[in-house]
Amino acid sequence: MRNIKIDIEYDGTDFIGWQRQATGRSVQAEIETVLRTVTDEYVVITGAGRTDAGVHARGQVANFKIESPIGTIDLKRALNGLLPDDIVIHGVEEVDDRFSARYSARERTYRYFISTKLTAIERRFCWQLFYPLELDRMREACGIIARTTDFQSFCRANSGVDNYLCTISEATWEIQPSGMLVFLVKANRFLHGMVRALVGTMVDVGRGYLTIQEFQDIIAARDRKRAGMAAPPHGLFLEQVLYGDVSWERFPASN
Amino acid sequence: MRNIKIDIEYDGTDFIGWQRQATGRSVQAEIETVLRTVTDEYVVITGAGRTDAGVHARGQVANFKIESPIGTIDLKRALNGLLPDDIVIHGVEEVDDRFSARYSARERTYRYFISTKLTAIERRFCWQLFYPLELDRMREACGIIARTTDFQSFCRANSGVDNYLCTISEATWEIQPSGMLVFLVKANRFLHGMVRALVGTMVDVGRGYLTIQEFQDIIAARDRKRAGMAAPPHGLFLEQVLYGDVSWERFPASN
Repeated sequence: MRNIKIDIEYDGTDFIGWQRQATGRSVQAEIETVLRTVTDEYVVITGAGRTDAGVHARGQVANFKIESPIGTIDLKRALNGLLPDDIVIHGVEEVDDRFSARYSARERTYRYFISTKLTAIERRFCWQLFYPLELDRMREACGIIARTTDFQSFCRANSGVDNYLCTISEATWEIQPSGMLVFLVKANRFLHGMVRALVGTMVDVGRGYLTIQEFQDIIAARDRKRAGMAAPPHGLFLEQVLYGDVSWERFPASN
Repeated sequence: MRNIKIDIEYDGTDFIGWQRQATGRSVQAEIETVLRTVTDEYVVITGAGRTDAGVHARGQVANFKIESPIGTIDLKRALNGLLPDDIVIHGVEEVDDRFSARYSARERTYRYFISTKLTAIERRFCWQLFYPLELDRMREACGIIARTTDFQSFCRANSGVDNYLCTISEATWEIQPSGMLVFLVKANRFLHGMVRALVGTMVDVGRGYLTIQEFQDIIAARDRKRAGMAAPPHGLFLEQVLYGDVSWERFPASN
């Protein structure tokens, strides 16, 4: 079997999320359906991150196994020709058999966009929030989360993981010239709903509902009920997934 | 009667254009319907520019006359509360009775966006073009159009105007960090379909289908059939309309 890696952009607006479900339009199912047409094989794809309904991606990565000898350039052309226009494949390459888009990932980058004024044109791609936010305090919160710690307070219940340790290597809030606020966060892994819970809680800090000490206490509590509301999905973008050259070495013989 | 000026942003994707027509969803009709609800008067609004179906606006301007004593802050709140989410009112102010959003305008600014790679997220807001474009040649064409001349070759037939003289005060092509090509153009007036015809013809220059000399000949011909195809509407944004402080002086007693 050949192992194929693809780089994917999608507008999450009209999807139930990345993952195939019994009903509804998922990114995974759309791509699998087209792969079935192109290769005449039943293909199952694995994504680097399972984005929720409404979440967008500029740099989602997936991999899948096929027998078909189709060239990567032809495969890319066929995928983009047959996929709906809210999914675009930016790269197709053949990779080592042990590579997994999900388990070989070293680092994932997300961005979250907040508009502090009403917007028609950007409405599908940001959270529109009309109360004043103190960016300095939100940046102080960034300093607190940028480390290795237990993030259970920002993980949706029943997520099925057995540990909540994540290493956040970078977390910043910036203002774009247009006035859009942008949260950038990089980590080795993210728990289910983590970025949206972090943004919702940091917004509570920025509007003065939580002190920095309370924000620290929320992390220490390891309890999702203590943190703020999840920010809405349509402000969130999966921007990039990084892999090391030997990232599949963790899975030697068994795969 | 009070004369009210409003600043409008809209996502043109789902509109038949600015102007009210017998059937279909127009920006003008949506705003007029809401004004009828708010003021209980039949209000007719005049826009600075009649954008075509699919064209967006960040800075459209309109004005209308009402008897209602409603304050401008309340009116803005009521409009944004009742309008669909693809129209946003950014400003409401009471102006001199002689002010006309259309006839008092001194300068209009448009931007046109071209993506040279496939994109899902930006697909409603740019023209996706996959052949190489020589930006230097397109910039040379900018130098040729940035003046006062007859632009009939870039005006849709039967547009009902009696002269085609326009003064283009600025015309540039820039590349954004994302790779998006942006055409910026400012003029005292624009003819019907002019920006899209200019972009379509400049793209023909950029891909080597037309020489600069041929581009000059097209302008001199004063014949729409000589120019290139109109670029698609969804890459076009009406960005800004400027008015002088005494801009309504052109219309003294009669209005």
